[in-house]
Amino acid sequence: MKRSLVELIARKRDGHKLSSDEIQQVISSLLDGQLADYQGAAFLMAVFFRGLDDEETVALTVAMLESGQVLDLSSVRGVKVDKHSTGGVGDKVSICLAPLVAACGVPVPMVSGRGLGHSGGTLDKLEAIPGFRTDLDVSEFSRIVGEVGTCMIGQTKEIAPADKRIYALRDVTATVESIPLIVASILSKKLAEGIDALVLDVKVGRGAFMKTAAQARALAEALVRVGTRAGKKVVALLTDMNAPLGVAVGNANETREALDILHGKGPADLRECTLLLGAEMLVLGGRAANADEARTRLEAAIAKGEALAVMEKMVAAQHGDARVVGDPSRLEVAKVDIAIAADRDGFVTAVDALEIGLSAVAIGAGRTRTDQAVDPAVGISVHAKPGARVRAGDTLAHIHVRTKEAATPIVDRVRAAFVLGAAPPTPSPLLQARIT
Amino acid sequence: MKRSLVELIARKRDGHKLSSDEIQQVISSLLDGQLADYQGAAFLMAVFFRGLDDEETVALTVAMLESGQVLDLSSVRGVKVDKHSTGGVGDKVSICLAPLVAACGVPVPMVSGRGLGHSGGTLDKLEAIPGFRTDLDVSEFSRIVGEVGTCMIGQTKEIAPADKRIYALRDVTATVESIPLIVASILSKKLAEGIDALVLDVKVGRGAFMKTAAQARALAEALVRVGTRAGKKVVALLTDMNAPLGVAVGNANETREALDILHGKGPADLRECTLLLGAEMLVLGGRAANADEARTRLEAAIAKGEALAVMEKMVAAQHGDARVVGDPSRLEVAKVDIAIAADRDGFVTAVDALEIGLSAVAIGAGRTRTDQAVDPAVGISVHAKPGARVRAGDTLAHIHVRTKEAATPIVDRVRAAFVLGAAPPTPSPLLQARIT
Repeated sequence: MKRSLVELIARKRDGHKLSSDEIQQVISSLLDGQLADYQGAAFLMAVFFRGLDDEETVALTVAMLESGQVLDLSSVRGVKVDKHSTGGVGDKVSICLAPLVAACGVPVPMVSGRGLGHSGGTLDKLEAIPGFRTDLDVSEFSRIVGEVGTCMIGQTKEIAPADKRIYALRDVTATVESIPLIVASILSKKLAEGIDALVLDVKVGRGAFMKTAAQARALAEALVRVGTRAGKKVVALLTDMNAPLGVAVGNANETREALDILHGKGPADLRECTLLLGAEMLVLGGRAANADEARTRLEAAIAKGEALAVMEKMVAAQHGDARVVGDPSRLEVAKVDIAIAADRDGFVTAVDALEIGLSAVAIGAGRTRTDQAVDPAVGISVHAKPGARVRAGDTLAHIHVRTKEAATPIVDRVRAAFVLGAAPPTPSPLLQARIT
Repeated sequence: MKRSLVELIARKRDGHKLSSDEIQQVISSLLDGQLADYQGAAFLMAVFFRGLDDEETVALTVAMLESGQVLDLSSVRGVKVDKHSTGGVGDKVSICLAPLVAACGVPVPMVSGRGLGHSGGTLDKLEAIPGFRTDLDVSEFSRIVGEVGTCMIGQTKEIAPADKRIYALRDVTATVESIPLIVASILSKKLAEGIDALVLDVKVGRGAFMKTAAQARALAEALVRVGTRAGKKVVALLTDMNAPLGVAVGNANETREALDILHGKGPADLRECTLLLGAEMLVLGGRAANADEARTRLEAAIAKGEALAVMEKMVAAQHGDARVVGDPSRLEVAKVDIAIAADRDGFVTAVDALEIGLSAVAIGAGRTRTDQAVDPAVGISVHAKPGARVRAGDTLAHIHVRTKEAATPIVDRVRAAFVLGAAPPTPSPLLQARIT
């Protein structure tokens, strides 16, 4: 029995399971206009309340995936593996991770996003490299993945158009925070890349989309279950996002810091996060038998400059100025530097990633609406991380702006993001859980 | 703190109470286009799941009411009282009730609706009277209520436009079945009539919108609570709608039957329902001290021909052929008469009002879409009511159609609506509850 579209909304509203054909019908009707946006919105809100089981979520993922082009990377040899992060503050991991993993022999086709709200985006950070283009078409993308081992572009209009349409609706109808909808949105785009395996970095904490470990674990588990059902090898790591990752928050400064990692430098937490995710990718890609072996291989690729060489090739292939790879200081960071100092002695017990992220948006490093531009040169450096012992007058952070006045509205906010206490905090491990 | 519209959707989604100003903001934004239809749909679905408390429902009612014109009937003397039925099969009560109550000195300004689905509509039935117009403007409506005591029109575009807009959205987004939304829809239209008091006939059973006593009671209680909070005197009766009310189901034949009541004839259940509701209206209107006194007054108004005289004046004032009031047989009923006979001896234990209603729609007496026309002359007569003893070959019902073939698709369906048993059913009282 074929049900009408209104009946399908009513059935989901009443908690019934929809068949894969019915979910396909909803998505294709939304795209061809048979299902109006207002009906789509009602359906999404019904899903928000009633959820989707794994079979329904797979059906939604596949329907969204198949609404567009699925890249054919069969000409690229090897097990193609990508990484997706649910987003955080200072999360520039993709930029160093993709060339590093590619340097170890695992092709990494990566379609990334832009920053929105407190959370930054890989595309914005990469575009701080003069000339770098993220709007390549799919044939150029495939060619570069084959030749260089990795390529990083934005979602083209051919990739999962249903996801674009649905995400735009969710954004304005208060239906973003639904695990099955998040899972289908992430996986439909990632599966469209033509990958064989996927490593997920599910961030948890103040600066993450998922604020609690329980929420993050639920999302990670759903991603792994649904991705596996959809025929891919999937591993998820839960990593801490209470404080910003690394030191730099912004765009050019974050790309600098990612390049520092490939130079064997950079902040310890960023290096650790990169190696943890990279090890998973190497094992999934069949280039290491276990995480320890993978880690050794990754460290060697950094030490020998192999990862830097891949990065140089990728930047050049994507029309960017490859000289920045050898000399990250070529990336322009705004000249005015406002230091935020500790007002007393103590231990840094917390650095609120959300507040740092929102402060960065306020000076132009991010956007609150998708049609806004970002200033690649501005940003914040978080020098004192949780656990650090500081004395009154020590620098906690720097704000990088083009004029002194530009920093004024956020000075107090950035200072307040640093919580000082008499005793050091209980250390919060970067890796909180591994889900397979 | 003023919240954005998306925040208001999210707050309702998360089960928070919205302030009256916030509800007003949602409704006015929907009307002026700041809140898109898809956001309205998401809000309605959130309300479906989370509900609205009485204060929120009053705010929604008032916002919808004040989106349009509120009639000023201050020039009409007396306590203005209307009746609203939640709709059923064979429910022609308004047509005899309004002139009867008006004849007893209570002005009845009545804005009615059209049939949709299995449920008939007062406007369609009245328009079976040649020339009768239900599309009068509000000034003519007020004048006729003042001069005649009652007038029956359709919802004008000036009355509660927000309700029209929201109802259209609910209809296509599976958000009709929400008690606070139903309450606000009913009350916003009724309060716009400029009434002082309202009697509600909440139908319960197979042919009603509310299938169970619990649902109907919940709706009736909410209507009374919210209507009272909105400053009106409100009483609700729960009445049985498992079998059709009266004998006639259709349009012209229903109007005939309503006129029969004013002639002191007609089916007992229809007469009883009219008197029950009329008694409440007379008490609310201050024309009787109690239901017994009111009933005596109503019966006298029928016996003395006073109700018929008001009906005649109303039909004439609304441009209809008033001769039908004295001679209801002037109303054309389709000439082809298909009798449905009992196939065995027994007691009628049930007559499925929903099936009779849908059968009437199928022959053209009703509509499945709002843009369809109805044929006033076709219909069904339900001769054997629950409790009746029948012998094989006795007529259970007549189908009135323009051609024999037109009845063919419904003959079996109408027959199957009559359930025969060996023993009489437990009588189901017409009045199931009274809620104040």
